[in-house]
Amino acid sequence: MIPRKTKDKILATALTLFNERGERNVSTNHIAAELGISPGNLYYHFRNKHEIVFQLFQQYQAEVRGFMTLPAGRDITFEDKVRYLEAILSSIWDYRFLHRDLQHLLQDNEDLRTAYRAFTSRTVEDGRRILQGLARAGMLNATAEQIDALILNIWVLVISWSSFLQSVALQYSDSSVSRDLVKRAIYQIICLEEPYVSEQLKPLLASLKREYLGDGVTDPLALFARAGQDAVPVKSSAMPAPPEPTLRAE
Amino acid sequence: MIPRKTKDKILATALTLFNERGERNVSTNHIAAELGISPGNLYYHFRNKHEIVFQLFQQYQAEVRGFMTLPAGRDITFEDKVRYLEAILSSIWDYRFLHRDLQHLLQDNEDLRTAYRAFTSRTVEDGRRILQGLARAGMLNATAEQIDALILNIWVLVISWSSFLQSVALQYSDSSVSRDLVKRAIYQIICLEEPYVSEQLKPLLASLKREYLGDGVTDPLALFARAGQDAVPVKSSAMPAPPEPTLRAE
Repeated sequence: MIPRKTKDKILATALTLFNERGERNVSTNHIAAELGISPGNLYYHFRNKHEIVFQLFQQYQAEVRGFMTLPAGRDITFEDKVRYLEAILSSIWDYRFLHRDLQHLLQDNEDLRTAYRAFTSRTVEDGRRILQGLARAGMLNATAEQIDALILNIWVLVISWSSFLQSVALQYSDSSVSRDLVKRAIYQIICLEEPYVSEQLKPLLASLKREYLGDGVTDPLALFARAGQDAVPVKSSAMPAPPEPTLRAE
Repeated sequence: MIPRKTKDKILATALTLFNERGERNVSTNHIAAELGISPGNLYYHFRNKHEIVFQLFQQYQAEVRGFMTLPAGRDITFEDKVRYLEAILSSIWDYRFLHRDLQHLLQDNEDLRTAYRAFTSRTVEDGRRILQGLARAGMLNATAEQIDALILNIWVLVISWSSFLQSVALQYSDSSVSRDLVKRAIYQIICLEEPYVSEQLKPLLASLKREYLGDGVTDPLALFARAGQDAVPVKSSAMPAPPEPTLRAE
């Protein structure tokens, strides 16, 4: 087995730490220490944390572009559709630090901002082609206008899901955004597409929905409760309780 | 006319500055200077910026709770539905600093995190009741399960739209997120609901869609272009162009 290059190891370690602790809470020194290398060695490979984040984004982008393609020389099938959903789930989960705190990453990183914008256009375009492929194959009954709205709603859902989960977690910890909770995003995408799916496909879609729903509970309020369940109760003894005049009792 | 209290003026000025420049870029000193008061006077009313943000969130919350109610003693009408959409648009626009950078605000503010979580549960619950009301009034044909998925998709869209727009803007400036671009969020909500809307209502919905679409272009790529059009071209002469091995030519 060929040992991985130091540069790749730095990226892999940074990705793990960013995902676990949040990018803001991880310095280049933390990454070097975790790998058992000197900060100087890390700086030999990356000028700064921005460059590490940018390279991780490039990996993420390459991954997404790899799977967001129509099958060559044949019609798209339901099995393809399932593969897309699985690949989307993995991309959200594997790079959750990007999704959870994108605004922060973009604000301070001009290279990333420019690249991200191009990536968005490209991915939405690819996604639309896939939906059009599904329509051509008779699986989706939707007008061009409906496909435009659908792909945009799917895109906003995909990029926002992790940060939405984080917003209902009580603590900023990785444990509050589990892979199981990310699966619900795929369920929500299936629900977005369902009204347009052909009658023939509806039974297949129903079983797919059950698979991604996990515990079988559709209630969003139950999801919020789960997003907070791993969190340590919030202590605020050091601060007086904030005034909440508009909070009505449940 | 009764002069407004200093406390209210501070909140109003902070809201304007936060929306225009982003909360991160506005200090309590900026707010005091804009009002022509001393920092000491500001600190007499608010311990710190967190407290100002928290009070602005309470205002936003009160506003949302004010309009997210079913009409008392009568069925919900299409005119009510239009009013909800307009109110949602105003709440996104008037408090865009909250929506654009929520993760940042929540991470550092435990009081806000706890309150926001309760607010989310409450608002999604209220939204679901409104959709159920529309179903009871014969305007929406959707199962309980479909309503659960629909309200969650609407919620994620509403809270994510401003930050999504910011992610495709080239610059972090207020001008890149105009009220006109926020209107598209309402169009997207209507598209989410459309498949479930009764046949009778479909013509009304079609004209509502046109109203919120603005320029009449459904193409998401055109939207991205508009989100960036006000931005100054990105200059990166100080930095070498980043490697983009995975970028394919369009």
